[in-house]
Amino acid sequence: MSDEYAFLKMLRSRIVHDGARGLFDDVAVLPVGDSRLVLTSDTIVEGVHYLPADPPADIGWKLAAVNLSDLAAKGARPVGCMLNYALSGDAAWDAAFLDGLHEALDRHAMPLLGGDTVRMPAGSARSYSLTAMGEATGAMPSRSGAQAGDRLFVTGPVGDAGIGLELARSDPTASGPLVDAYRRPRPRLAEGTLLAPFATAMMDLSDGLLIDAARMAQASDVAITIDHVPLSLALEKARGASTAVQIAAARAGDDYELLFALPRGATPPVRAIPIGYVSSGTGLTLMIDGAAVPLPGRLGWEH
Amino acid sequence: MSDEYAFLKMLRSRIVHDGARGLFDDVAVLPVGDSRLVLTSDTIVEGVHYLPADPPADIGWKLAAVNLSDLAAKGARPVGCMLNYALSGDAAWDAAFLDGLHEALDRHAMPLLGGDTVRMPAGSARSYSLTAMGEATGAMPSRSGAQAGDRLFVTGPVGDAGIGLELARSDPTASGPLVDAYRRPRPRLAEGTLLAPFATAMMDLSDGLLIDAARMAQASDVAITIDHVPLSLALEKARGASTAVQIAAARAGDDYELLFALPRGATPPVRAIPIGYVSSGTGLTLMIDGAAVPLPGRLGWEH
Repeated sequence: MSDEYAFLKMLRSRIVHDGARGLFDDVAVLPVGDSRLVLTSDTIVEGVHYLPADPPADIGWKLAAVNLSDLAAKGARPVGCMLNYALSGDAAWDAAFLDGLHEALDRHAMPLLGGDTVRMPAGSARSYSLTAMGEATGAMPSRSGAQAGDRLFVTGPVGDAGIGLELARSDPTASGPLVDAYRRPRPRLAEGTLLAPFATAMMDLSDGLLIDAARMAQASDVAITIDHVPLSLALEKARGASTAVQIAAARAGDDYELLFALPRGATPPVRAIPIGYVSSGTGLTLMIDGAAVPLPGRLGWEH
Repeated sequence: MSDEYAFLKMLRSRIVHDGARGLFDDVAVLPVGDSRLVLTSDTIVEGVHYLPADPPADIGWKLAAVNLSDLAAKGARPVGCMLNYALSGDAAWDAAFLDGLHEALDRHAMPLLGGDTVRMPAGSARSYSLTAMGEATGAMPSRSGAQAGDRLFVTGPVGDAGIGLELARSDPTASGPLVDAYRRPRPRLAEGTLLAPFATAMMDLSDGLLIDAARMAQASDVAITIDHVPLSLALEKARGASTAVQIAAARAGDDYELLFALPRGATPPVRAIPIGYVSSGTGLTLMIDGAAVPLPGRLGWEH
């Protein structure tokens, strides 16, 4: 049992408010006046969630993007966010971080409203948190609504960010679409809004297609079969499309595409790639070239 | 110019949303549906905002209390909060932290809704953030509304937490009311709700009476005279009530009492201690035993 699992178990035993959704969802939901507020918060830690050599503007961008992606999965409209910032001691670094953060926030009309700024003791890893709030006006899909017979889709290919991370690790000056996918993920807010009224289940891909699909299957009490691992041209060009590459892509994290289920026969209202289907039963099956393949021991990024 | 001042200046130049209040207030205000949400966020850092030897339950309590205190200053009703937690690697420590956090949250009917949990690299100072949301249903005093002629009050004595910190620093096992004041500050939520409709200006005392009163004077474009520094019996017993002790108490932080202004002749609807008055002009005057005394070079905790 991991530290975090034990901690969440301890938290769950204390948390009684319905809005917390038992801490099993990516967001909390709070009725405020005649509206519903969707809340999410992510912390990124130097050396854990980003590489110390990553450009600060990309770190700022990513902090915004991962939070916006959680709102996207609920079809929520961004209304405001709060930043907890650990000063770097380097004004140019701080300015570049804010540039990247605001670039991502501004692109999605997300106002930064306040927060707190602290100094860390010398030698400490720095961490940054963003708490994002969105407003849900209509249907709000959870990860637990998938039904036998549904078809499964993603809003884009998977695995690019995983390869991008490998490239950035071996060469901090690496660039190109795969590194961009890792450093500048695009939260699918427009797609989320359009999908929310129709998707029976929806979540963003943060930890990897396999593990996130397995979570959707478990939460929905259904079986999920993935029969297509969509790869980008950039990834195929860099690594080919062997079974090993497809499995690696399906367990790579940080893609931030939306994974969603639609009733059989429904056409997605956004550009999307069919990747499988939902049936009665439990568990996850991965098929490559028409044949079931053994699942890897570690399905994705567990934390 | 401090790091944080430079950072806030940079942020202010980018932040355009009215709800951010130009980052000059302790809270942000967000209209949601037919309601107003009051938002605040505080981060505490090991070795900066608390002593590594502090009992974890007290650290958890304090994180909740400082955020609740910001809501108290607006007369806002707690509606929910999000926690960003750095795992300690010690399950008993984490459990004790959560105990203290929940004790403070439960006492004020503040639901914990979610957040994020991270691991820090070995050797790093840990930090914890809480983002608290409240709902304002009526008048919401700012720090900028004090008027010439107003009388100034606090909801309790000042300086206890400052002495408590000294005692805890020299002896981690120290106890008693002064150490309690430092480790278990009481946010004045009930008082804040009762005062909000009447106070022309209100704020919580986090950095010290002198510096916080100077900030109220500046924000309100008035002069403030403090003619009484209220000391607790515990503090007088420990340190006496000399001019030096009074000045030290007035520049000590972490009290979390409410500082508020009422029109002349109005009676506070809560237990409160009169400490001075507002007049036209600018700046802060401190009078002890009827005579103005020179202000200390550092008015309080600046960060």
